[in-house]
Amino acid sequence: MSIRENTVQGFKASAVAAGLKKDKSLDLALIFSERESAAAGVFTNNKVKAAPVIISREHVLNGSARAIVANAGNANACTGKTGLDDARRTTGLLAEQLGIQPDEVLVASTGVIGEPLNINAISGAVPSLVKALSPDGMLLAARAIMTTDSFPKMSYFYGRAGGQPYRILGISKGAGMIMPNMATMLSFILTDIRVDSRDLKRALLSSVETTFNRITVDGDTSTNDMVLVMANGMAGNRALSEAGYRDFKKGLETVMGELAHMMVRDGEGATKLITIEIKGALSSSDAIKAARTVANSCLVKTAFYGKDPNWGRIMAALGRADIEMKEESVDIWVDDVQIVAGGLGKGAEAEKRAAEIMAGEEFTLTIDLHLGDYQDRIITCDLTHEYVTINADYRT
Amino acid sequence: MSIRENTVQGFKASAVAAGLKKDKSLDLALIFSERESAAAGVFTNNKVKAAPVIISREHVLNGSARAIVANAGNANACTGKTGLDDARRTTGLLAEQLGIQPDEVLVASTGVIGEPLNINAISGAVPSLVKALSPDGMLLAARAIMTTDSFPKMSYFYGRAGGQPYRILGISKGAGMIMPNMATMLSFILTDIRVDSRDLKRALLSSVETTFNRITVDGDTSTNDMVLVMANGMAGNRALSEAGYRDFKKGLETVMGELAHMMVRDGEGATKLITIEIKGALSSSDAIKAARTVANSCLVKTAFYGKDPNWGRIMAALGRADIEMKEESVDIWVDDVQIVAGGLGKGAEAEKRAAEIMAGEEFTLTIDLHLGDYQDRIITCDLTHEYVTINADYRT
Repeated sequence: MSIRENTVQGFKASAVAAGLKKDKSLDLALIFSERESAAAGVFTNNKVKAAPVIISREHVLNGSARAIVANAGNANACTGKTGLDDARRTTGLLAEQLGIQPDEVLVASTGVIGEPLNINAISGAVPSLVKALSPDGMLLAARAIMTTDSFPKMSYFYGRAGGQPYRILGISKGAGMIMPNMATMLSFILTDIRVDSRDLKRALLSSVETTFNRITVDGDTSTNDMVLVMANGMAGNRALSEAGYRDFKKGLETVMGELAHMMVRDGEGATKLITIEIKGALSSSDAIKAARTVANSCLVKTAFYGKDPNWGRIMAALGRADIEMKEESVDIWVDDVQIVAGGLGKGAEAEKRAAEIMAGEEFTLTIDLHLGDYQDRIITCDLTHEYVTINADYRT
Repeated sequence: MSIRENTVQGFKASAVAAGLKKDKSLDLALIFSERESAAAGVFTNNKVKAAPVIISREHVLNGSARAIVANAGNANACTGKTGLDDARRTTGLLAEQLGIQPDEVLVASTGVIGEPLNINAISGAVPSLVKALSPDGMLLAARAIMTTDSFPKMSYFYGRAGGQPYRILGISKGAGMIMPNMATMLSFILTDIRVDSRDLKRALLSSVETTFNRITVDGDTSTNDMVLVMANGMAGNRALSEAGYRDFKKGLETVMGELAHMMVRDGEGATKLITIEIKGALSSSDAIKAARTVANSCLVKTAFYGKDPNWGRIMAALGRADIEMKEESVDIWVDDVQIVAGGLGKGAEAEKRAAEIMAGEEFTLTIDLHLGDYQDRIITCDLTHEYVTINADYRT
C-alpha cells in the first residue's frame, strides 16, 4: 500500500496511548474532517447498547459530522448513567479542542464490558491526540482500535464520479463476536466524494447487508458494533447520477467486503476462511438461515479445523436449520469436489480430495438444496484451540 | 449401585463387540422384555432423520414393543434406501432369533453419519447377543452405546403404585450435540409398572421436556436422537390412579433428570456443569430463549472455562436473545454471590468471590430480568480445549 493509499483529502487521523489498554499500546484514535461532512452510521441491534452507541446514534441523526473518536481497552458498555456521561464528556472534550460542536463528534468504544471508562486518562490524552492529527494517520488509528485483532485492517478504493476522481478509505477492527448483525466490530469509512447524506445512508445500509452482515466468527453479537461513514465532498464531483451512485455503492461494498474478509481471516484463533454458499433454497430467508446455521455450528467449525469433510455434520446442521429441505436432494461441494450427491456421500476418494483442499487457508463449501431459486452466503472461520485460549483468558 | 439396582423384573439385556467400533470394544446392545410391554418413544426433530429413527417411530406407533437393539460406531444416517433396508434387516434378524415380530423390535444407532452400516457384522453378532441376555446386563448395554462418552450412564428409581413396588431403570449416552430438542443422545428406560401406553407416552413427553430438552452441550442437534421407554406391567399394580400416575411421572423425571445431568457432566471436553436459571421473564418463551442463548454462547462458555465471571458477555447474550429485556433491570448471581445489580457490576470483590465458586465443578448462574413471572432453566457445560480436540479428530 503506497502512502497515497493511506489518505483521503481533507481528512486527518491520529492515535495515542492513553493508558486504557493494559499493555500501554495505542488505544485512542481520532479522525477529523477539515470541513463538514455528510455522515451515516449503522449500529448494533443488540438490546444492550454501549453508551457510545447511544450517543453516536444521536449525533449522526442529522446526517453530518466532523470527527470520530474511538478507544479500545474498554467498551463503556453496561456502565449506566456514568457511562453515558463519560461518552458525552469525551465528545465534549474533543469538540472543545477541535473548535467544533459536541454533536459533530461521533464516539466508539471496544474492549471489556462493565468497567467504568477511565475518563481522566482520555481527557489527559486529548491534547496530544489532536496535536498528532496528520493526513496519513489512518493506519495508526487502525492500530489503536485493535483488541484481540492480530493485524490492523485497512482497505482502499479509487473511483471516478462524473469524471472526477474520488477515494474511499476504510479501517476496521473485530476478531470475535462477528454475527449475526455485526458484532464487536468497529469500522470507519472516509471518502471525499460529494454525496448527500440520504444517499450515503442508503449506500451504507445496502453495503453492510452484503458484507459485514454476511460474516460470522462465533455467533455472538456485541453491544458496541458500529459502522460510520463520512463523506466530505472535496472530490468536487457534481451531484451523483444514478450510475454514479451505483458506482459509489460498489466502491463502498468493495472496501467493506475487503475489511469483512480481513475480519474473518483474523477471527479469534482462526486458521481458515470458509465461504458457505447456499443455492437452490425455497426462499431467501431459508437461504440465509441455512448458511448461518452451517456457518455457526461448533461441530462443523471444528471439523473445518480438523480438515475433515465431515458432511454428516453439515447435513445435521441443515436438518435443524428450520428450513425447507429434502435430505435426498442435497448436493455438497468443497470447492469443485463434490462430496455429497442426492444426500449420499460420494465416497472415500472424493473425501480425500476434499480434505486436501481443506488443508489450505481458504475454500468454499457449496450446498445446493435443489428446491428453489434462492441463494445466499456467509463467510466464516474454523473453531480452534486458540479460540478457546483467547476467550478463556481475555480478561485475566 | 447394588446389583439389585441394575435390574427390573422381566427385562434382560446384553452387549457384544460386533466390530463396528474401531477399537473393537462393545458396540451392539440388546434389551428384551419377557412379555409384551407398553412402549413409547420421542425422536429427533432434525429434518434429516437416521434410518433407525424412521423405523423405530413406525414400530412404536401401536404403543407396544418387546426389544430394543442399538449399535454405536455408525449412525446409519444419510444412508438412503440402503440404510432403511439395513435398519429393517436388523429388526428382522433380532425378531427371528427372539421369536417375536419385527415390528416389536425398536432399533437405534449412534456414531459416524453417512457411512453404510456393516450389516454383516451385525448379523454375525446377533446369535451371541441374544445368547448373552441376562437380567443384569443393562450396565453392559450402557457401555455398548457409548461413543465419545467417558463413562456409562445409568439411573434407578424405586417407587410404589397402590402399594405395589415398582422400579424404573434408565441408561443413556450422548456427550456432544445435546440440544435444542435432544441431540446425539440415546436413552432407554425400563419399568415394571403397569401403565397403559397412552399414559406412558404422556409421562414420557412431559418428562423429556423438563429434562433432556433442558440440557445443551454445543447447540447442535443430531439426526439420531431417541428416547424409548418400555413398561412390562410385572409389578402387578392396579390401573394407575391420578396420584399414582403423578408419582410415576415424578419417578420417570427423576431418572431422566439424573441421566441428563450425567450427559452434560460428560459433555465433550466439559470440566464444569452450569445451570442457567432465568427468572422474571415476560413470557415463558422469553424465559427459555434467554436461557438457551446464554447457555449456548461460545463466549460465555469459554468464560466459564476460564473461571471468569465475565458478566458483560452474559448481558450481551441476553441483548441478542430476541427477548423483552431492560438492561437496567437485570440482576445476575453466581450461586449466592450477586455480580450484577440493575445492569451494573457489583465490583471486584463480588467478582473475586464468584470466580472462586466458578473454580468448582458445578454452579448456578441466576439471571433475574425483573419484567414478569416466567422462569426456566437450562443445564450446560463449559467450552474447552478438549472439546475442540475431540471434535477436530472425531473421524480421523
